[in-house]
Amino acid sequence: MSWNTFGRVLRFTTWGESHGPALGAVVDGCPPGLELTEQAIQPFLDARRPGQSKFTTQRQEADRVKILSGTFERRTTGTPIALMIENTDQRSKDYSEIANTYRPGHADYAYDAKYGFRDYRGGGRSSARETAARVAAGAVARLAIPEVTIHAYVVQVGEDRIDRAAMDLETVGANPFFCPDPQAAERWAALVDAARKDGSSLGAVVECVASGVPAGWGAPVYAKLDADLAGAMMGINAVKGVEIGDGFAAAALRGEDNADAMRPGRDGPEFAANHAGGIAGGISTGQPVVCRVAFKPTSSILTPVDSITRPDADGISKATQVRTRGRHDPCVGIRGAPVVAAMMALVLADHKLLHRAQCG
Amino acid sequence: MSWNTFGRVLRFTTWGESHGPALGAVVDGCPPGLELTEQAIQPFLDARRPGQSKFTTQRQEADRVKILSGTFERRTTGTPIALMIENTDQRSKDYSEIANTYRPGHADYAYDAKYGFRDYRGGGRSSARETAARVAAGAVARLAIPEVTIHAYVVQVGEDRIDRAAMDLETVGANPFFCPDPQAAERWAALVDAARKDGSSLGAVVECVASGVPAGWGAPVYAKLDADLAGAMMGINAVKGVEIGDGFAAAALRGEDNADAMRPGRDGPEFAANHAGGIAGGISTGQPVVCRVAFKPTSSILTPVDSITRPDADGISKATQVRTRGRHDPCVGIRGAPVVAAMMALVLADHKLLHRAQCG
Amino acid sequence: MSWNTFGRVLRFTTWGESHGPALGAVVDGCPPGLELTEQAIQPFLDARRPGQSKFTTQRQEADRVKILSGTFERRTTGTPIALMIENTDQRSKDYSEIANTYRPGHADYAYDAKYGFRDYRGGGRSSARETAARVAAGAVARLAIPEVTIHAYVVQVGEDRIDRAAMDLETVGANPFFCPDPQAAERWAALVDAARKDGSSLGAVVECVASGVPAGWGAPVYAKLDADLAGAMMGINAVKGVEIGDGFAAAALRGEDNADAMRPGRDGPEFAANHAGGIAGGISTGQPVVCRVAFKPTSSILTPVDSITRPDADGISKATQVRTRGRHDPCVGIRGAPVVAAMMALVLADHKLLHRAQCG
Amino acid sequence: MSWNTFGRVLRFTTWGESHGPALGAVVDGCPPGLELTEQAIQPFLDARRPGQSKFTTQRQEADRVKILSGTFERRTTGTPIALMIENTDQRSKDYSEIANTYRPGHADYAYDAKYGFRDYRGGGRSSARETAARVAAGAVARLAIPEVTIHAYVVQVGEDRIDRAAMDLETVGANPFFCPDPQAAERWAALVDAARKDGSSLGAVVECVASGVPAGWGAPVYAKLDADLAGAMMGINAVKGVEIGDGFAAAALRGEDNADAMRPGRDGPEFAANHAGGIAGGISTGQPVVCRVAFKPTSSILTPVDSITRPDADGISKATQVRTRGRHDPCVGIRGAPVVAAMMALVLADHKLLHRAQCG
Repeated sequence: MSWNTFGRVLRFTTWGESHGPALGAVVDGCPPGLELTEQAIQPFLDARRPGQSKFTTQRQEADRVKILSGTFERRTTGTPIALMIENTDQRSKDYSEIANTYRPGHADYAYDAKYGFRDYRGGGRSSARETAARVAAGAVARLAIPEVTIHAYVVQVGEDRIDRAAMDLETVGANPFFCPDPQAAERWAALVDAARKDGSSLGAVVECVASGVPAGWGAPVYAKLDADLAGAMMGINAVKGVEIGDGFAAAALRGEDNADAMRPGRDGPEFAANHAGGIAGGISTGQPVVCRVAFKPTSSILTPVDSITRPDADGISKATQVRTRGRHDPCVGIRGAPVVAAMMALVLADHKLLHRAQCG
Repeated sequence: MSWNTFGRVLRFTTWGESHGPALGAVVDGCPPGLELTEQAIQPFLDARRPGQSKFTTQRQEADRVKILSGTFERRTTGTPIALMIENTDQRSKDYSEIANTYRPGHADYAYDAKYGFRDYRGGGRSSARETAARVAAGAVARLAIPEVTIHAYVVQVGEDRIDRAAMDLETVGANPFFCPDPQAAERWAALVDAARKDGSSLGAVVECVASGVPAGWGAPVYAKLDADLAGAMMGINAVKGVEIGDGFAAAALRGEDNADAMRPGRDGPEFAANHAGGIAGGISTGQPVVCRVAFKPTSSILTPVDSITRPDADGISKATQVRTRGRHDPCVGIRGAPVVAAMMALVLADHKLLHRAQCG
Repeated sequence: MSWNTFGRVLRFTTWGESHGPALGAVVDGCPPGLELTEQAIQPFLDARRPGQSKFTTQRQEADRVKILSGTFERRTTGTPIALMIENTDQRSKDYSEIANTYRPGHADYAYDAKYGFRDYRGGGRSSARETAARVAAGAVARLAIPEVTIHAYVVQVGEDRIDRAAMDLETVGANPFFCPDPQAAERWAALVDAARKDGSSLGAVVECVASGVPAGWGAPVYAKLDADLAGAMMGINAVKGVEIGDGFAAAALRGEDNADAMRPGRDGPEFAANHAGGIAGGISTGQPVVCRVAFKPTSSILTPVDSITRPDADGISKATQVRTRGRHDPCVGIRGAPVVAAMMALVLADHKLLHRAQCG
Repeated sequence: MSWNTFGRVLRFTTWGESHGPALGAVVDGCPPGLELTEQAIQPFLDARRPGQSKFTTQRQEADRVKILSGTFERRTTGTPIALMIENTDQRSKDYSEIANTYRPGHADYAYDAKYGFRDYRGGGRSSARETAARVAAGAVARLAIPEVTIHAYVVQVGEDRIDRAAMDLETVGANPFFCPDPQAAERWAALVDAARKDGSSLGAVVECVASGVPAGWGAPVYAKLDADLAGAMMGINAVKGVEIGDGFAAAALRGEDNADAMRPGRDGPEFAANHAGGIAGGISTGQPVVCRVAFKPTSSILTPVDSITRPDADGISKATQVRTRGRHDPCVGIRGAPVVAAMMALVLADHKLLHRAQCG
């Protein structure tokens, strides 16, 4: 089933393919009266934009956002906000040879199995280019949660992790890896460059922290804040794992080590730790909301991999090998950081409004 | 916001508190004509039922399910199926002393922050007892996907993991830990018993594999099969992490090691590996769907933990310490296995129907 | 498709058949802290309850509501409120002879065409008994909109309309017809009694007015307040038409006669008329919200009507005639009045919460 | 609340204001493989297009639709279909004088009450121009229900109704009123022209018939086919009433006159009448689906009407009078016919897919 809408009351719907004329998002349910201009959205798209260093795909896209509806005299009106980003550097010919071959690790085979055919140019709808629309929508969502500050950064590339002791969020913007550890950023430059030259690719882990979320957002059961975050993050292209707070490490802890002790504070409790990642029973606790997201290495690599051809008229697939020659990110997780931040903003804004609906 | 409905076209809504008269689920959208009796649901509830060994909570609940609507002459009619499970062993007095204290790691503080007050008896709506309703709903969902076989089992308790080489799914039912490795099951008996005697608790990791899922279930964007699974699993009480396929380990792989090579097979492709966990681009590939779910150690422990009292009339909280004396699972992840399996069934059945809606 | 949930943020799900053990509703999203007891719901069910006069079905149902979840110490907790009403007077034998015959005007044939079979006892899920669950849910919804007063009353039975000049809402409860015109009530007693004795049935029109709705509830496009009301009302059993404000009569007016002129008032505008029925552009104007709902005569009559038998094993239907002997309302629209009021409450409460979500 | 998405599995989201750069729709959930081109959508937009005769608004809009996503090689891919229509004849200056005045009968006051301010140019989001997006979406929906034929036509303008005996659907396209009775069309030409010259306006009733709908689409309770149709139709601008089948007239019938007798036919039952309008118990019966929709006279008239000004900085509104000088339809219901047809298509296509989801 096609289901391109996300959210419960602050909802957005995205559309567009990698090689169509444009892609976009419609943001619905945004509160009225917020100041919104194209200039306010653009920096978020620029952070995600390809072609800015040799460490990302060389596709050149300006990713200029246009606001087509929903604002009047620079303010949101409460009606749907249509955002459009035109595709400018498409080069469809790069993809012509894969029209009849399934790229292992990509959605090619699954799409054909579902729909009977597919737009094979650059992955069509399954292209990570779709995430530009989410980033634009996320910029709108941030307006609805001015009390919240969101940081997303890469904590692992391949097997190489940052040094937590050296972590400095101020340095995230100073390198092309959204890396909060300057020394790790230097190592990653070599690592990613080597992978690029090898025609290989690397996985990564992105961490995202939202500060300023008050206690009380979320729901006891199926619209839990953590459940919605997990769905949001796992829905990003190439993501294979999501953790809240201590995540998988919590499975190895004992109860007394995992408890977040409290003591009375000025504005609610002060917590001795944040193993829970700011969410208990599906509801925010007032601590920072923390999640980590694992990206697989992109499947677009130069090493030949065994595969099969599209079934012919008789339903017969033949053995073949696939090398992916297009322009790709050697480490797709890096540009995932702004997308993770956008999804965090969208989930939090939705839950703020949901909380307000029920609890006034 | 309260949002107790899960699913898109095969939906279920649960209700009930730990210490109310009953809890239940309404399953809506189930195909008509399926044979459904209370006897068919009961074994799934029995697998999850507490009080069956010294390794789980000693609360004694028969967990007898009643079907109140939606069937006629032992078959589903296509109308909503109401399932009810009466609470029989509630002992509200165990919880009276925590009415004015927040248990660290529990939802107590977050609930009060959200709703202004809470049903404090046994966690109220945030109690894991709610998962009995999901297990009952999951038993109905299984009827809609007879082509699928689901196994859920525990692969890690505390820091102790099973030996993958010794794994035998036939042995899962032969021990109280849903453990597929008999030797690990013996070790866990000692481990969990020690934690219980210490008044401590342990985390766990549950793995779930669904075989027989055809290629084509899922969606390219926000209703991705993996995204919906992640939301479903993260929404289970005490869960802090979800992985699909290689999950976080994929972040450390190179593209050529993560690719699932294909060759022509009799019924679609044969895959050389399943790093993807049976899902590519949000759509099933025909391989087994694999996920892993991390449970934290339950926060109900006998070790005193610093905490605060509920704000008094003047809004003042005082420092206190909390020990949780009630009847609790020393390793809540163990009984999580049947719940994980139920959520897998519910997500898959929903996606089967969604796929049929769009693609006939 | 089965879709037994109504509402967007204040949602309720109903379940149950005419001749099952019980029926019920789960109300989700209700604000916390509202005082809710079974005693507060019961009067609304009593108003709709059958068997109270010779003018309604003689089925005797106590319609006692039980609250199974969602309250604590007489207040709503914000978690789902499960309501159950047991069926006590079912007499399944009355319906055995229609198992293989389609009653014209009933859902029998359509159900079989959809689901392949049906619970034929008393209409199963298509029975108007389901509306008891809505009335119970509506009683909860009213708690969320204390600023609103809702009146529903019958303005037409068969061809006989009330005299608008004689209308007095105080008299609605003083006759068994929810009739605001005492003289019309006397005429209707004769009219309905004659129809009952003839084994015939009569249609009716119910009007519903909600006062106290502030300006601003609703939405500009697909969740318009009037659109949601229309869907809610048309979804009541036997309803064939819905009007807001002047409704069909507005089609015959000229623009200058239909305009609701405004002048400055103390609390917003004062309106010279209410042709719009309190809703403009899908959003409430602060005037009373007015709708009218047309009920067809029930199709359960003693006059034989040509029909067909259920297809036999060879798919062959035979001609037959149907007389409906069960216990039925000669004018089902009368008991529709409390149901219309309940749906009005549910739609308004949902929109109050939706408005609060977006506009604070 | 803003809620610009319609439908359950075949969903569409519209965006755009009367005087923004463009408006559009995103159609999601459409089956793959259907032939879809801009040329196939355009005739439906042309039928609704303004400025084609002196009987409609003189605003000149080409209403050229562009497909921005969701098709590949002229076929739908199963991914979201983005449709865009640029606004070309906006003349914002016409509206400047109403920025601070509320037009009676319009949404002006309600919008301000809800959102605190509004885009006042041409009604902004509340403009009937939004229906162009629905018509485009409806053209896509028709592709999913090739078995269904939909006719929408005007049966009443002001107080003047067609002669049912003279009705000929072939003539609907031969006059500017979508009128199936050529003599009525002649009378309406004089009637509408007189209203236009008077600066007045007229209401209208549109009837819509869908043939070829098989028995079994719809749902027993809240997603009833008739309930969803009622919501869809009441959500069209200026609509104040909706009827299915005999509608309000059914309220005046006796049961024996309202029954649709059946006899065995070759492909299911043959019905002696269609009082039910093709829907029983919320589910289609296989007869034509019939609804009627009442449009009020547009509130944009030259006759001065008492009104108030927007509250000034001190919250004070002053008395004023409003005459609406812009370019308006003297009878907005006429151009409503293609919109009614589009909504019928959208509801039916959605229910076809919903039926398939549950019943295969």
